[in-house]
Amino acid sequence: MNISHRQVNKRVRFTDASGNPLAGKDIKVKQIAHKFLFGCGGFDFMPYVIDGNEFFKDITEKWLEIFNYATLPFYWGNFEPEEGKPDTENLLKTAKYMQSKGVKVKGHPLCWHTVCANWLMQYDNATILKKQLERIDREVGTYKGVIDMWDVINEVVIMPIFDKYDNAITRICKEKGRVGLIKQVFDEAHSINPGATLLLNDFNTSISYEILIDGCLSAGVPISAIGIQSHQHQGYWGKEKIEEVLERYSHFGLPIHFTENTILSGSLVPEYIEDLNDWQVEEWPSTPEGEERQCKELEEMYRMLFAHPLVEAITTWDFRDGAWLKAPSGIIRKDGTVKPAYDMLKNLIHKEWSTDETLTTDENGFVKLDAFKGEYNIEAKGTNVNAVFLKDGEQQIII
Amino acid sequence: MNISHRQVNKRVRFTDASGNPLAGKDIKVKQIAHKFLFGCGGFDFMPYVIDGNEFFKDITEKWLEIFNYATLPFYWGNFEPEEGKPDTENLLKTAKYMQSKGVKVKGHPLCWHTVCANWLMQYDNATILKKQLERIDREVGTYKGVIDMWDVINEVVIMPIFDKYDNAITRICKEKGRVGLIKQVFDEAHSINPGATLLLNDFNTSISYEILIDGCLSAGVPISAIGIQSHQHQGYWGKEKIEEVLERYSHFGLPIHFTENTILSGSLVPEYIEDLNDWQVEEWPSTPEGEERQCKELEEMYRMLFAHPLVEAITTWDFRDGAWLKAPSGIIRKDGTVKPAYDMLKNLIHKEWSTDETLTTDENGFVKLDAFKGEYNIEAKGTNVNAVFLKDGEQQIII
Repeated sequence: MNISHRQVNKRVRFTDASGNPLAGKDIKVKQIAHKFLFGCGGFDFMPYVIDGNEFFKDITEKWLEIFNYATLPFYWGNFEPEEGKPDTENLLKTAKYMQSKGVKVKGHPLCWHTVCANWLMQYDNATILKKQLERIDREVGTYKGVIDMWDVINEVVIMPIFDKYDNAITRICKEKGRVGLIKQVFDEAHSINPGATLLLNDFNTSISYEILIDGCLSAGVPISAIGIQSHQHQGYWGKEKIEEVLERYSHFGLPIHFTENTILSGSLVPEYIEDLNDWQVEEWPSTPEGEERQCKELEEMYRMLFAHPLVEAITTWDFRDGAWLKAPSGIIRKDGTVKPAYDMLKNLIHKEWSTDETLTTDENGFVKLDAFKGEYNIEAKGTNVNAVFLKDGEQQIII
Repeated sequence: MNISHRQVNKRVRFTDASGNPLAGKDIKVKQIAHKFLFGCGGFDFMPYVIDGNEFFKDITEKWLEIFNYATLPFYWGNFEPEEGKPDTENLLKTAKYMQSKGVKVKGHPLCWHTVCANWLMQYDNATILKKQLERIDREVGTYKGVIDMWDVINEVVIMPIFDKYDNAITRICKEKGRVGLIKQVFDEAHSINPGATLLLNDFNTSISYEILIDGCLSAGVPISAIGIQSHQHQGYWGKEKIEEVLERYSHFGLPIHFTENTILSGSLVPEYIEDLNDWQVEEWPSTPEGEERQCKELEEMYRMLFAHPLVEAITTWDFRDGAWLKAPSGIIRKDGTVKPAYDMLKNLIHKEWSTDETLTTDENGFVKLDAFKGEYNIEAKGTNVNAVFLKDGEQQIII
């Protein structure tokens, strides 16, 4: 698979401050950050950052060895269980800690019919919508500069026909229409933070989601990237489906984010289950064979997505087993030990898809370099400087 | 089922030209036209009107005993098989003939990927789109005043992913997006005939079509009515599906037209057939049991649709057996003899859902009247006048 679009083809000239070339010198070029967003759910940071839990300290350290991008939970029902008392501080502290570690943070989600605040249901539709927009103002405004990426609205394909239980968001989506509601929440988020990356996110990858995106773009909704969930609790999608989904969603020319990726290392959910939330089990063990399979499937999928020019982000949903549905969905086990998938990803991202080379400059101070896009530490003559490589061509670095 | 919304509740006062009441007189009130559009494919008018074919003269007379609304074919590939030589005159003659018989005519369709003009494929996409819009200009302009109702674009849900064969319209839909193309063709039709009734039409009744309509309305597409095809070659939808489709498509508040309705009086197409066009048979007989079943199912469906306040039109697709796919899909047989469904519809529309009464005015010239919406012939004192009853309330008629 061709991944040359992930790299820059550079001719770098090393000079001293006066512009004299560093001729015939060894230059160490080591990648310290990726442009590509290798993401994971960041939920496990909270017990450590907020409560100082030592078990989770170890978990977050393992997390940081692989990922550069995290999703933090803003489910309205949990974030603000009582009206007017949002859990602003804890999430701000967590997000800032991650930011200090070089991790980009996304908030998820600003509008969703599930895990919604029950207290909203006492209001009429006009008031619900007003409170939803105020909530967007508040969160997007408060976290600006710390969180500049949002899953603005989640799972709209089923939103107005969701019938498991009554909720405030299904009510207003039914009234405003899907595109109508999407437009309002996106316009609101965009007005508060015009530089933010704003995503539409869905698990539905059928033609319905394509048509929804088409309608949104025609109605001028400021979508920055298309979010695609890929929870594969009922079995790995496989090459063919991944290719087909990529092909269909690349027609829009927008960046594509795989926002919620799950591949299990245990038994699968039977096909007859329509809503994964209906699969309630006491125990759901990770097995050695399952871990090998997970590792293979995850590698194939990451390679395919990394090779597609429009994919900008892949987020592994659960870092650790036993979270959503108790599933063996992580790349570490419940006890914190790592699975084969963990080592595979670490190797893929930080060896195979990273650049770490020593080169020798020619008589004019030049080196030629193919480097994965991102940030670099350059060492020459015992001195260190940082450089960012994002575009092909010539670049001068003063040592 | 409540059909009171199809009727007006009137108090009509009969006077002479000087305003003196016609007291104690018998008034005959007879409906001569319905507001509701009882439609049928009008293809069989062409051999009679154009070529004077006597067999089809009889067919059209039977047709006119039931219906007040016809669909005429404007499939681009048949209408203009050679670029620049459209079959304008024959269709104009047919449409005018129908108009002279009090029949409202709809043109079908202005844009579709099937039965498309092959010569379009020699052009690049920009030229194809230009020619498509020019075609809309030409047809909507030429037939204005004779045809003021159009299926503007057909089957857009599958349009950009239609892969049975290459065609010009799938190409431009892929490029412009579904809503993008819909908006252009609707805006064009609307600009040429702002008073025209413009329909979006699809056989897909899933959530995908709902989302498409939602997107179109958010993008400001001037859709007058939602067109729903209901070819039931694989079996009658039944009450539950009809109710569910009506419920889902009434959320938009737009009029709903059942544009292409088929219920067979013979054997059904097996469920495993995905595209009805793949069902090719030598003979497809209408059977006595099939005709009884068709009659029952058709009656149930017409009653349900007539009872729904947003349904404005029902079009039986084939008048006569043996048209599309050779199916026993008509309400008359291939030889022109009528089926039970023909008599049932005639009775339903022209007896049960028509008003034909004799009333006696009171001393002030008033009669009270519940009448099906439409046009009436009023006879009193040996004189005839016409009146239109569309709204509840008082109305004065001078005899």
